[in-house]
Amino acid sequence: MMVDFIADYYQKIGKHPVLSQVQPGYLKERLPESAPYNPEPIETILQDVQNHIVPGLTHWQSPNHFAYFPATISTAGFLGEMLTTGFNVVGFNWIASPAATELETIVMDWLGDMLKLPTSFLFSGNGGGVLQGTTCEAIVCTMAAARDQMLSQIGRENIGKLVVYGSDQTHSTLQKASQIVGIHPKNFRAIETTKSTSFALSPEVLKSTVCSDIEAGLVPLFLCATIGTTAVTAVDPLGPLCDVAKEHGMWVHVDAAYAGSACICPEFRPFIDGVEGADSFSLNPHKWLFANLDCCCLWVKNPSALVSSLSTNPEYLRNKATDSKQVVDYKDWQIALSRRFRAIKLWLVLRSYGVNNLRNFIRSDVKMATFFEGLVEMDKRFEVVVPRKFSLVCFRVSPSAISKANYPTANYEKCVNEVNCKLLEAINGSGRVFMTHAVVGGIYVLRCAIGTTLTEEKHVAMAWKVVQEHAAAILHPPCIN
Amino acid sequence: MMVDFIADYYQKIGKHPVLSQVQPGYLKERLPESAPYNPEPIETILQDVQNHIVPGLTHWQSPNHFAYFPATISTAGFLGEMLTTGFNVVGFNWIASPAATELETIVMDWLGDMLKLPTSFLFSGNGGGVLQGTTCEAIVCTMAAARDQMLSQIGRENIGKLVVYGSDQTHSTLQKASQIVGIHPKNFRAIETTKSTSFALSPEVLKSTVCSDIEAGLVPLFLCATIGTTAVTAVDPLGPLCDVAKEHGMWVHVDAAYAGSACICPEFRPFIDGVEGADSFSLNPHKWLFANLDCCCLWVKNPSALVSSLSTNPEYLRNKATDSKQVVDYKDWQIALSRRFRAIKLWLVLRSYGVNNLRNFIRSDVKMATFFEGLVEMDKRFEVVVPRKFSLVCFRVSPSAISKANYPTANYEKCVNEVNCKLLEAINGSGRVFMTHAVVGGIYVLRCAIGTTLTEEKHVAMAWKVVQEHAAAILHPPCIN
Repeated sequence: MMVDFIADYYQKIGKHPVLSQVQPGYLKERLPESAPYNPEPIETILQDVQNHIVPGLTHWQSPNHFAYFPATISTAGFLGEMLTTGFNVVGFNWIASPAATELETIVMDWLGDMLKLPTSFLFSGNGGGVLQGTTCEAIVCTMAAARDQMLSQIGRENIGKLVVYGSDQTHSTLQKASQIVGIHPKNFRAIETTKSTSFALSPEVLKSTVCSDIEAGLVPLFLCATIGTTAVTAVDPLGPLCDVAKEHGMWVHVDAAYAGSACICPEFRPFIDGVEGADSFSLNPHKWLFANLDCCCLWVKNPSALVSSLSTNPEYLRNKATDSKQVVDYKDWQIALSRRFRAIKLWLVLRSYGVNNLRNFIRSDVKMATFFEGLVEMDKRFEVVVPRKFSLVCFRVSPSAISKANYPTANYEKCVNEVNCKLLEAINGSGRVFMTHAVVGGIYVLRCAIGTTLTEEKHVAMAWKVVQEHAAAILHPPCIN
Repeated sequence: MMVDFIADYYQKIGKHPVLSQVQPGYLKERLPESAPYNPEPIETILQDVQNHIVPGLTHWQSPNHFAYFPATISTAGFLGEMLTTGFNVVGFNWIASPAATELETIVMDWLGDMLKLPTSFLFSGNGGGVLQGTTCEAIVCTMAAARDQMLSQIGRENIGKLVVYGSDQTHSTLQKASQIVGIHPKNFRAIETTKSTSFALSPEVLKSTVCSDIEAGLVPLFLCATIGTTAVTAVDPLGPLCDVAKEHGMWVHVDAAYAGSACICPEFRPFIDGVEGADSFSLNPHKWLFANLDCCCLWVKNPSALVSSLSTNPEYLRNKATDSKQVVDYKDWQIALSRRFRAIKLWLVLRSYGVNNLRNFIRSDVKMATFFEGLVEMDKRFEVVVPRKFSLVCFRVSPSAISKANYPTANYEKCVNEVNCKLLEAINGSGRVFMTHAVVGGIYVLRCAIGTTLTEEKHVAMAWKVVQEHAAAILHPPCIN
C-alpha cells in the first residue's frame, strides 16, 4: 500500500505547485490538538497525508524543481534506505555492527578512488572516510580537530585568538560551524570576492588577510575552500590557497558539497586539482549522486586528529575489538554516538548504476544546463551573469532590457535588481517551476539549478518558457517605483 | 522484492548469532577493490547483502538482543521512513517544505503533551520542540546556546572559565558536546555518585562542587541531569538539582534519552517531576518509542536562545515567510542546514498505535524486566546490583557464589569482577543472546536491557537460561588467577 502510495505521488508530482502555496499555520487548523488515544488505521493516515501533508510540501523531486541545489534520489537509494531502516542497526562502534563499519570504509575508498583523491585520503593510504549527515557536521568535526591540534601547541587559553577563513561566497555552514566550536565571532573572515575572479577566493587576498591577522597577534586556524559555491558555483583555486594556508600551519577543508560529485567524470576532475594540499574534503551524494537524504562523505588525511577531539571511551562501550585498536569506531569520527547504516545506501547506488552510468547522469544534467544557458543567451532581454561551470545557470533580466527612462537614475541598479526579484516571485507564484536567487557583487541573480532525477530537456524548455512569459508581463508595463 | 527480503530477514532473525562473530577485516576480503564500471542487477546485490553483510550485522532487532538500550522499531516507523525517503524534501526552512516544519511543531506539542511537560516547553506556551538526530546534537545545540548567552554577559574572553557539570554516570555525550563547543577540558565535572543514592547525582555534592569552582574564579554554565542513566538507569533528582543550578544561573538540560519515553505512562511520570525548573529536555523515540533511527526530541523553553547561537541568514535562503517572522525555520534550531522530514515518522507512530497502546508497550517491557529481575533474585548465585526502575536489569554473579578459597584475598573484589566479565564473554560468545556491561562503584555488572520490539517473555526466559548455563560452567571449575 505504501509503495503504491509513493508510486502514485511520483506519477502526479508534476501536477502540484512546485513551491507549496500554503500559508503559515495552515496545518494546525487541519490536525487535532493532541495525539489519538486509540490506534488509527493506516488508510486514514495516508488519506490525511494526501489531503493535508502533500499540499504543504515543496516538491523537491518534481522535474520542475530548479531551486537551491538538487536533492537527487534514485530507486537504489530508496531501496538502500529500506535496508537501513529494516536492519535498524546502530553502528557506533565496530562491534555494534561490524558490517556497517567495514562497508563504510570500503565504500568510502571506492568513492575516493572514483574521484581520484590522493591515496593519503583513503584507508588504503592511512587516511580515511566517514559518512556524516551534512556538510555542517563534517566541518564542525574537522574544525574541532584543527582547533584542538592548534591549542595543544599554543595553549587552550588562546582559543580567542583562532581565526577561520572563507570567502563571502562560502556556505553559511562555515560560519555556523565556527560559532559552534567556539571561535570568537570577530575572528571569522568572509573574504570579499569579485566578479573579476568569477567570485572565487583570491590566494593573494587570503595571504594579505592572514598576514594582517598575524600582525594583530591572532592565530590562523582553518580555511574552507569551496568547489562550486552555493550562489554561483564558483571554484576556489585549491593549489594556491593550500600553499598560503600551509605556510601558516592552517587546516584546509575543501567543501565540494554539490560539485564534488561531478569530479567522478575525468573532464571535471581538474576542478579539484590541488586537493592533495588539503587536510579534509567533503561532498554530498544526497545532492548530486543519487543517494537520498542524508549522506555527506568526509575524507581526512589524519583520522587520529578527528579521533583525538571526538573520542570518548566510557566503560559501557568497552570491548575487545576496540581495545585491540584493529578496528574503526566511527563514533569517534563524528558528533553523534548513534549512527544509521548509511553506507549500504551508497553501496547500492554505486553498484546499481556503476561508475559509467553515474558519470553519464552527471553529463546529462550538465548538458541540460548548457541547453538552458543557450536559451538565455539567445534572448536579448536576458544575460548569463556568471559563466556556467556545472549544472547551475545564473541569469537575470539584463539592465539593457529595462528602460532607464522609467527609473530615477540614482536607483537604477537597485531597480534592475527589483525587476529581477519581481520576476522570480512571479515565476514561483505560478507554481509551475521553482527557482531561487542569490546576490553576488550587488547583482540579484536568478538561479536555475538543474539535476533533479526526473528532470528532462522538455522540463528545462518549459522552465525557460515560464521565465520568458513572466518577464514579458513584467517588462511591458512601466515599473512604478 | 525488497519488502520480501526484509520480511525474510525478520523471519530468520532469531537464527543468526545476535552479536556478529566475524573478525576485523572480514568484509574487505569478500568485496571487490573498487566500484563496478557497469551496473549490477539488484538480485546480485541482495545476494551479496545476504551472504556478506548479514553475517557482519549485530542484530539489534533480534528478540534476543539485550545489549546497550533497545533501538525499538515498528511497522509504522518503517512506513514513516518510506514516506520520508519517498518525498525526500529538505526542510531547512519553512518555505522549503511548510508541511515538514508545521507537522514537526505539531507532533512535538503532541508528544510534549503526552509527557505532561510544562506548557513552557511547548509551542503553545512559547517554548518549542525540534527533532534532532541524536542526544549529542541536542546537547551541542543547547550548550552552545547557554555558552553564548553567558558570554554575552561576561565577555567572550572568558570562555575558558565556563564549567559544565554532570555525574560520573552521565552519558559520555555530555563530555563530547562540551569538547565540541570549546569548553576547557579541565572545566568538565563528572561528579562522583555512589551506591547509596543508586548512582544518582547528589544536589549537595553538586552545590559544593559549584561553590568551589566559583571560589576558584570559574563560571558555572551547564548542568546535564539524567533520567535513566546508561549504566544502571539512575534517576537524578530534578527538582533539587534545578534549585542549585538556578541559584547560580546555569542552564539545565535533562537527558531522558531512554527512560523519557516511559513517562508517557502516569505511573512513570513522577520520575521527571521537577522538569519545570529545567531549560531543555530530550528523549529518543528511536530508543523506546518505536520510531526507527534516527529520532531525538528536544524541547526548549527559550527557542530564541538556540536561534541566536545557531542562525545564519545567507541571502540565498532569504524569503518572505522568514522575513515575516511568522514561521519556524528549523535550520536555526540544529547543527545542520539540511534536514530529513523525520516528523512524519513520529506522526505515523503516534497515530498508528495511539497513546494507550504505546503506554501498554512500555508496560509490557517493564513487566518482562520485572520477570527477569525475579528470576535473578530466585537464584542464590546471583544478585541484582541496583534496584530496577524501568526495563533494564543490572545483575551479577554474587560474591558469595565465588569461593574465597580460590582467590588471593587482596584481589577478591577484582576477581569477582573478572568472573562476571568472563561470564558475559561466554554468554555473548554463544551468539544466543547479546548483553553488555557497566562498571559502577567498582562493581562490574551485566546489563539485561529489555524492550526490543520482538522480545517476548519466552525470549527473556531463554536469556536467563543462557546466563545460568554459562554461570554453571564458569563457577564449577576453580578460577585460576
